[in-house]
Amino acid sequence: MTAFSFTVDATDGAARTGRLMTAHGPVATPAFMPVGTAGTVKAMTPDAVAATGAEMVLGNTYHLMLRPGAERIEKLGGLHRFMAWPGPILTDSGGFQVMSLAKLRTLDEDGVTFQSHVDGTQHRLTPEISIDIQRQLDATISMVLDECTPFPATEEQARASLDLSMRWAERSKQAFTTRDGYALFGIVQGSVFPELRKESAQRLIDIGFDGYAIGGLAVGEGPDAMIETTELTAGLLPDDCPRYLMGVGRPQDLVAAVAAGVDMFDCVLPTRSGRNGQAFTSRGPVNIRNARHADDPRPLDDTCDCPTCLGYSRAYLHHLVRTGEILGAMLLTGHNLRFYQALMAALREAIDQARLTQFRTDFETGLECGDIDPL
Amino acid sequence: MTAFSFTVDATDGAARTGRLMTAHGPVATPAFMPVGTAGTVKAMTPDAVAATGAEMVLGNTYHLMLRPGAERIEKLGGLHRFMAWPGPILTDSGGFQVMSLAKLRTLDEDGVTFQSHVDGTQHRLTPEISIDIQRQLDATISMVLDECTPFPATEEQARASLDLSMRWAERSKQAFTTRDGYALFGIVQGSVFPELRKESAQRLIDIGFDGYAIGGLAVGEGPDAMIETTELTAGLLPDDCPRYLMGVGRPQDLVAAVAAGVDMFDCVLPTRSGRNGQAFTSRGPVNIRNARHADDPRPLDDTCDCPTCLGYSRAYLHHLVRTGEILGAMLLTGHNLRFYQALMAALREAIDQARLTQFRTDFETGLECGDIDPL
Repeated sequence: MTAFSFTVDATDGAARTGRLMTAHGPVATPAFMPVGTAGTVKAMTPDAVAATGAEMVLGNTYHLMLRPGAERIEKLGGLHRFMAWPGPILTDSGGFQVMSLAKLRTLDEDGVTFQSHVDGTQHRLTPEISIDIQRQLDATISMVLDECTPFPATEEQARASLDLSMRWAERSKQAFTTRDGYALFGIVQGSVFPELRKESAQRLIDIGFDGYAIGGLAVGEGPDAMIETTELTAGLLPDDCPRYLMGVGRPQDLVAAVAAGVDMFDCVLPTRSGRNGQAFTSRGPVNIRNARHADDPRPLDDTCDCPTCLGYSRAYLHHLVRTGEILGAMLLTGHNLRFYQALMAALREAIDQARLTQFRTDFETGLECGDIDPL
Repeated sequence: MTAFSFTVDATDGAARTGRLMTAHGPVATPAFMPVGTAGTVKAMTPDAVAATGAEMVLGNTYHLMLRPGAERIEKLGGLHRFMAWPGPILTDSGGFQVMSLAKLRTLDEDGVTFQSHVDGTQHRLTPEISIDIQRQLDATISMVLDECTPFPATEEQARASLDLSMRWAERSKQAFTTRDGYALFGIVQGSVFPELRKESAQRLIDIGFDGYAIGGLAVGEGPDAMIETTELTAGLLPDDCPRYLMGVGRPQDLVAAVAAGVDMFDCVLPTRSGRNGQAFTSRGPVNIRNARHADDPRPLDDTCDCPTCLGYSRAYLHHLVRTGEILGAMLLTGHNLRFYQALMAALREAIDQARLTQFRTDFETGLECGDIDPL
């Protein structure tokens, strides 16, 4: 078996390219992980996900523990086999969705009790249970259970939440069974308070993890505070470990976070937007439902090499989305995921060639152009 | 350009294998056409449809004339380019859906006026308008406008309906612009009355069409009357023209109709069932929602070579369908379409080897086995 490792290949300012080696294969970083919520990247076959360039996907422990259940997935040979994704999989701890989706949550020192949003059945997550579920799922990278501090929070609230998360991080580490090629990541909290972020990072480093995530962002603090906190926090984390910004974000957010030294991302934006008729392009977002596209024979983005842009017109995509056809969700999700993966590949190339600043300027200028003129 | 032609290669009793040559490529017969209702075979990319073995698809004139509109599709280069299906496309006349979906229909000698089920706008179809719309769509094979006689009908009602359909067939023929590699098919009506079917077939032959469809079946008459009428009607049609049984049906219906000498089929069953958790297998239908599949690591059908059966367990498909994931519809539709295409290929091989009777016995015995035992 391969040991889990992270190697930095090149740097450009705070940004870096690198490579994760895992039990389920390598991942070039900076990397974007499509979200495979309930064991499927919505509206995509695993082959199509891989064809976009994605090397690792994310699974949601909360959704999977409720349906079909972690024990069931374990008996069926793990999540990789279950969802036919042989590559690396990162699972979250379940804590975030418990707080955002579940009913009747009760948080205590030991963990959280909640009711399923699906059928109202009662469940419990503790650091130990979350880590065990992620082991049953056979997650390549497991995440510690934490409390994602709500925004806004007073410094006092954020400190109390942080203290709980750090105690849970310690327990998660204790509960984690070391296996070759598998990893456990800690999660920095502390809301938008620099002192708390510093303390959180240091306490996690003292515990010792294979990688470090920046959590508690993209929860309402706005893009400026998000990037500011990301820059601060990334700088506090060990250079030789992967840094993962959870749940972010828009293409420009990814570029800014890569410039700040982040190596890994996940976000539902490209997949959820794809099901809602929203496409990401090199000239900014396009709402394909808009009537201006009804007769437009041009592709979504003529700089894109995805099957959607090579094979279909805006007029066709408009028609599919307007008529609620499943193929519309499939084609737009495929395009959006390819757009995100192509962006990550371009960022890696720019860093390797030490021209990230120029790339970022050009990319942001492109987004500001706005969509091509109507015909 | 290729002229439209049909060649019979081999016969076995009334059954035959053959080949359609069209402006958009050849089609081996007997052939099953997946239904691409509104310019998409639901939940499938065109590449995936082609990979099942399908060579021709069907488009619904009613749906396409309402959304996105035939003029729009014509301006965008025709339905082939619009939906990225370069192969042959057969379009129906729109008449069937007008009677089954539209609101406030008024039928008169000249045609039918109706309100769209989508937005209530008023539209009109006459034989001439239907043929012109199908020309705008660039349909490889166009169908005459007819009245699909409702079931049950008295012989008097069926005769009046038949007379109208035959007058419309004559007008459709007059309106059709002959183009190399394109074809116009007539449609035999007459409900379940042998004398009316004979008269209808003869009147169409007198007008002269490139192919002949058997219409007005699978509308409630039951499988026995359907097959009986199909056998009778197929025998009335010219040997050197393709015969198309419209809207049929279950796998066993296709086998029986092929034995009766039918060359072409379309039906929503494999696609609609795929979106409803119903799979066709060599041992009969499987409802993947059933709890017995929740822990079953086996494929849907271990005799099937489709990506769904090669890559995914019943447990995973069960999970996808239960959680309403789009991928469930994609994978089951893909399997069902492959099952239908593999059946057509097996029928062609059996006819070529003059062992259709044995094949039919074996196939029907297989269906009667029922699903594999639960684990």
